Amino acid sequence: MNASDPARLRVYKFGGTSVASTEHLSAIAQLVAKDYQDGARLVVVVSAMAGETDRLQALARTLCPKPSPRELDALLSTGEQITMALLALALHALGCPARSCTGGQARIRTDHRHNRARIKNIDGTALLKALQKDHILVVAGFQGIDEEGNITTLGRGGSDITAVALAVAIGAGECRIYTDVDGVYTADPRIVPEARRLAQLSHEEMLELSALGARVLQTRAVEFASKYNVPLRVLSSFDPGPGTLISSEEIPAMEQPIISGIAHNRDEAKLTLIGVPDQPGIAHKILGPIATHGIEVDMIVQNIGQDNTTDFTFTVHRRDYEKSMDILRETATQLGARDVRGDNAIIKISVVGVGMRSHAGIASRMFAVLAEQNINIMMISTSEIKISVVIEERYLETGVRALHQAFDLEQKADPLPRSASTG
Amino acid sequence: MNASDPARLRVYKFGGTSVASTEHLSAIAQLVAKDYQDGARLVVVVSAMAGETDRLQALARTLCPKPSPRELDALLSTGEQITMALLALALHALGCPARSCTGGQARIRTDHRHNRARIKNIDGTALLKALQKDHILVVAGFQGIDEEGNITTLGRGGSDITAVALAVAIGAGECRIYTDVDGVYTADPRIVPEARRLAQLSHEEMLELSALGARVLQTRAVEFASKYNVPLRVLSSFDPGPGTLISSEEIPAMEQPIISGIAHNRDEAKLTLIGVPDQPGIAHKILGPIATHGIEVDMIVQNIGQDNTTDFTFTVHRRDYEKSMDILRETATQLGARDVRGDNAIIKISVVGVGMRSHAGIASRMFAVLAEQNINIMMISTSEIKISVVIEERYLETGVRALHQAFDLEQKADPLPRSASTG
Repeated sequence: MNASDPARLRVYKFGGTSVASTEHLSAIAQLVAKDYQDGARLVVVVSAMAGETDRLQALARTLCPKPSPRELDALLSTGEQITMALLALALHALGCPARSCTGGQARIRTDHRHNRARIKNIDGTALLKALQKDHILVVAGFQGIDEEGNITTLGRGGSDITAVALAVAIGAGECRIYTDVDGVYTADPRIVPEARRLAQLSHEEMLELSALGARVLQTRAVEFASKYNVPLRVLSSFDPGPGTLISSEEIPAMEQPIISGIAHNRDEAKLTLIGVPDQPGIAHKILGPIATHGIEVDMIVQNIGQDNTTDFTFTVHRRDYEKSMDILRETATQLGARDVRGDNAIIKISVVGVGMRSHAGIASRMFAVLAEQNINIMMISTSEIKISVVIEERYLETGVRALHQAFDLEQKADPLPRSASTG
Repeated sequence: MNASDPARLRVYKFGGTSVASTEHLSAIAQLVAKDYQDGARLVVVVSAMAGETDRLQALARTLCPKPSPRELDALLSTGEQITMALLALALHALGCPARSCTGGQARIRTDHRHNRARIKNIDGTALLKALQKDHILVVAGFQGIDEEGNITTLGRGGSDITAVALAVAIGAGECRIYTDVDGVYTADPRIVPEARRLAQLSHEEMLELSALGARVLQTRAVEFASKYNVPLRVLSSFDPGPGTLISSEEIPAMEQPIISGIAHNRDEAKLTLIGVPDQPGIAHKILGPIATHGIEVDMIVQNIGQDNTTDFTFTVHRRDYEKSMDILRETATQLGARDVRGDNAIIKISVVGVGMRSHAGIASRMFAVLAEQNINIMMISTSEIKISVVIEERYLETGVRALHQAFDLEQKADPLPRSASTG
């Protein structure tokens, strides 16, 4: 068995709270050292120590209100560089032959887009060579270099993407994302105390869950893992356990739950243009100016109104609410709409599950459950494996709990007897 | 006139206390921006913000008592990387087109010796290209990369060396070292209030002064500047003035002072082996074990003793005193010496000046002045342009003041009418 055997090859990623102090780093080092001594060959990706990125950003903004993206990348990349060197040292203290690599040293090539670069390619050869020498590689997450040698960063959640991309580059058998929670839950345990950790999920389901506001993994990282079929495992840095495995492995139909989980997202605000003359291209005329201002639109609903007019509703992130309202008021005048209305006290609840594909009636069941609780549904959006509704914010807890119970999510000890081991 | 005109091309270096806070960085940026707007084309070398290197080293030692040199370099190099990005941002805020470069990005190639690497070469082409585009380059000092792309650091005073090496690589007309003092003085002003800032010095003199404990410049940087004939100017970051120019330019004999300055060094301890049988190779037998332990020896004196024996005295850094005594006691037993004596309450005073070459009698004048003060001379060492004596520590102030007065160092307003301008 050699080091490039996928069963032994793994990538681990530790986020900011897992490396918040030297004590945390020592604990992480013990976890890594144990698996290494058990025969695993490891690439470990680290984020900046919690608070460091904010500290550096504050320094930058003190000197320059709008820091140049290139210099900001050179600055922020030091956060991960510090962690990588410190973790390598903590591993040395345990007798493990660790070597640190910056993004550039790990040959993580990106495009030129500073602060939100995309990885173009990673030359895994040098990394595999080092792994063959039984080194543990500690790689600075979140960063790379462009063709001209400029330091780039990948933007939010970049370290997760680094980990998945490295797993692809070296052909790792598993990519483990260590966080401060011990896995992915059927719902947010702070809202539903009976929420249960899922043993297994598909990439698709995780993609929907993370896009819907379950903050365990960054959407881009899950997309990447899905595209290259990398098994991901979400687990806790300090609380041993099997975590949640996210893979493309088919789950036998018998064991397959219809619904995997209930997600919610508070980061929503709703805007409606009322009585706009219904004409071709109206959606573009309304959303064009919003997009031009770099504002992301989530859900869109168009109703047929009276008198050949239409009502057009969409949601945006809450931070973009005021600005979107201003833009929409201007658009309303131009298009001769009757009124503009907004509401930023709304939330989105979604039920997600690949089982929906083979089970009809999930949507009507969901609507019935909410109706029983007297919760009014404002918007609906569906995909093959999820149904989302927008409701008033004050019904968040009631709605999530009722759905969690209605879909039997808390009942079974573990719906997947093939509970993934950490082996 | 183009950007590679040496008269316009300059390297500036700012040390840790000059970049200690964002306020300091803003002040530095103003200084740089002004010279840039006046037509200078600048490469600016920066150190880590004061305290940052110590903070990182402490973190490393918490995790690993003997941190690996490679990881320590990866860690410590972030200190300068943070400063370079912040200074570039501060320059942007003033409308200056600044670009930061790490040691690697500036193509500063070193050997493999982590923590004390030596620069092998710098490819100045890319730097000159950027300067032709009217960019201000802000380079992280103290660091480089080796042939395999590992991050290396240059050891103490490394940023001064980076600055001088960059000045050589781009053919700069002057390398300015900005510090917290406004130049090189005839003596330490804390000891001699009448001490005077020197307008000009030769590389040789500065080399002797820095080796003798005048802490303004690192010896290695001065050696480098001397070898490649780079004019250096020492000046204050926050106190405008011409500073002290250090160059190989001949000073007309009429204007030439005999003595440029009085240096002193408290970091001395003296060890003597008494009554060791005088035989060939005895110096090596005594100093070999000292060198093996990595202890640096400064002055060495051998006297002929009685009965075909000799007394052998040398000085070391004070931090090495106890260890050196232990080693010497063992050597004494092996060689059958009569006694071992030590004294760590001694200091060294030196008079330095290229004018000594053409003026006899400086040494005897020095000894006479000390004798008048009843100061006993324990050891003497001379070079072409300096005379050093070791005396009891308690006579430090008396000795330095008496010599400063005796050699007329405080009398003239400025002994060099060609006072260097900052232009």
